[in-house]
Amino acid sequence: MKAMLPVGAAQLVGIGDDAAVLTAPDARVVATMDLLVEGRHFRRDWSAAFDIGCKAAAQNLADIAAMGAAPTALLVGFASPGELPADWARDLVRGLAEETARAGASVAGGDVSSADTIMIAVTALGDLAGRDPVTRAGARAGDLLAVAGQTGRAAAGLALLRAGRAEPAGLIAAHQRPLPPYDAGPEAALLGATSMIDISDGLVQDLGHVAAASAVRIDIDTTRLPRDPELPAAAAAVGGADWLGWALSGGEDHALAATFPAGAHLPDRWAVIGAVSAGSGVFVDGGSSAAYSGWDHFR
Amino acid sequence: MKAMLPVGAAQLVGIGDDAAVLTAPDARVVATMDLLVEGRHFRRDWSAAFDIGCKAAAQNLADIAAMGAAPTALLVGFASPGELPADWARDLVRGLAEETARAGASVAGGDVSSADTIMIAVTALGDLAGRDPVTRAGARAGDLLAVAGQTGRAAAGLALLRAGRAEPAGLIAAHQRPLPPYDAGPEAALLGATSMIDISDGLVQDLGHVAAASAVRIDIDTTRLPRDPELPAAAAAVGGADWLGWALSGGEDHALAATFPAGAHLPDRWAVIGAVSAGSGVFVDGGSSAAYSGWDHFR
Repeated sequence: MKAMLPVGAAQLVGIGDDAAVLTAPDARVVATMDLLVEGRHFRRDWSAAFDIGCKAAAQNLADIAAMGAAPTALLVGFASPGELPADWARDLVRGLAEETARAGASVAGGDVSSADTIMIAVTALGDLAGRDPVTRAGARAGDLLAVAGQTGRAAAGLALLRAGRAEPAGLIAAHQRPLPPYDAGPEAALLGATSMIDISDGLVQDLGHVAAASAVRIDIDTTRLPRDPELPAAAAAVGGADWLGWALSGGEDHALAATFPAGAHLPDRWAVIGAVSAGSGVFVDGGSSAAYSGWDHFR
Repeated sequence: MKAMLPVGAAQLVGIGDDAAVLTAPDARVVATMDLLVEGRHFRRDWSAAFDIGCKAAAQNLADIAAMGAAPTALLVGFASPGELPADWARDLVRGLAEETARAGASVAGGDVSSADTIMIAVTALGDLAGRDPVTRAGARAGDLLAVAGQTGRAAAGLALLRAGRAEPAGLIAAHQRPLPPYDAGPEAALLGATSMIDISDGLVQDLGHVAAASAVRIDIDTTRLPRDPELPAAAAAVGGADWLGWALSGGEDHALAATFPAGAHLPDRWAVIGAVSAGSGVFVDGGSSAAYSGWDHFR
């Protein structure tokens, strides 16, 4: 399957040696790893192998972007039962390859093993190109809170699948294959972002990590959240679910949330949705965010 | 468990953000990933959690050394059943930490998940410090073949365990916890090594990869193999197994094999055991190596 895998500009030695060698022109490297386990993070009856491959790549590449870095390479470990159809594995690799190529990176190495359950381990690497890493710890009182990308669509898609529905196709697709705005990460760093995080567990929950790491209070103003016209209709279709809940607590969209100094001039794709002040915790429209603080994947 | 993990000199941002940030002073980064699955790569009744942690780290760190690089960091994914005793997981982390510290590297990130089977995914990163990477593809006719570290001891230990024996303790320990000579990797690069490989699947099998990638013939002279006095006795103890077979086809010792230009002046720990010539394949004492070409872990 090596021929299916993208080779990016950073790859010096690829698959087939003891290890890969990649350029790290910044003289620092950004690195992250996620595990995906069948039944916990994906279901073969709800997602095609191609989509699972895309998602496995996307959630790691988004973590690289959330540091303000550009993804350079992926390493992929794949454990599966012997009876897994070869087509399924090939489609998974195709998805990994396509999403990695979309981010401009290589699949530079990995490992395969047999196992009773399908497990995918992905490591993503990235380069900072001279910028400081944007951590979770730099938000300051007075900063703006902004988000690039959408939140709640993946959660709506999962709720529709749980209810046995296949429409609207765009929301189902948002659950099956997130499309993180990778270049928004380096862009935020250049715009002076003081903190940034990838929204994988829900806006409120992930901003809680920023508030804790930065020792600040973060307020979300729901009137400023981008209005997604499909969410209220989908909520009605699955029996009156709370569409705002999806937007505030839905995980797996892999939008980026960042804080910027007050007065920062942000491009259109960064929607200002709140503010940072002295204090602690995350507040929604000035009140408690407790109702919005959990995203459980399938658990 | 974060407090148990070593922080090396390369770590700029560690566990707790979207991704880790590590120095890559060479402006290149060496990266590798291995999976370990319970029942395939380790057995809880034959190895303690501490040893499994050491081994998971060692086999990845050895791949970094085999490129001529110094390990800088590990990322670790750990999937396990909910009923796994907390002590077992803690001992595993202790082993990972101890072996990573022995190599001078950090445990800089990772992920945890539930799963029905224990699976460990390890990514190791390393730095070349200005040296060219030593791949499998550079061996040339006329080169010397040399090995640093021991081969066959881990296989002997596994055979003893299979036979229900607990002695000699040194051989059992060699199976449970390999101790790769990490610094021999950068040393070989400085000595002008033309190719190098980590011996994980057996000397003959791994040299087969070098012979193929370099398009050369490799000859092993068994009279020059370091004599390990414990192997013949262990072979007799388990019923006349072939101790030379362990040395030639036993995996998991994580010795390093390298080729050097003829006349290279090698330190004592590099034992010259053969030569490279025009042709293809691996030969033992001038004859076929087919009897020594398979190491199957537990399969």
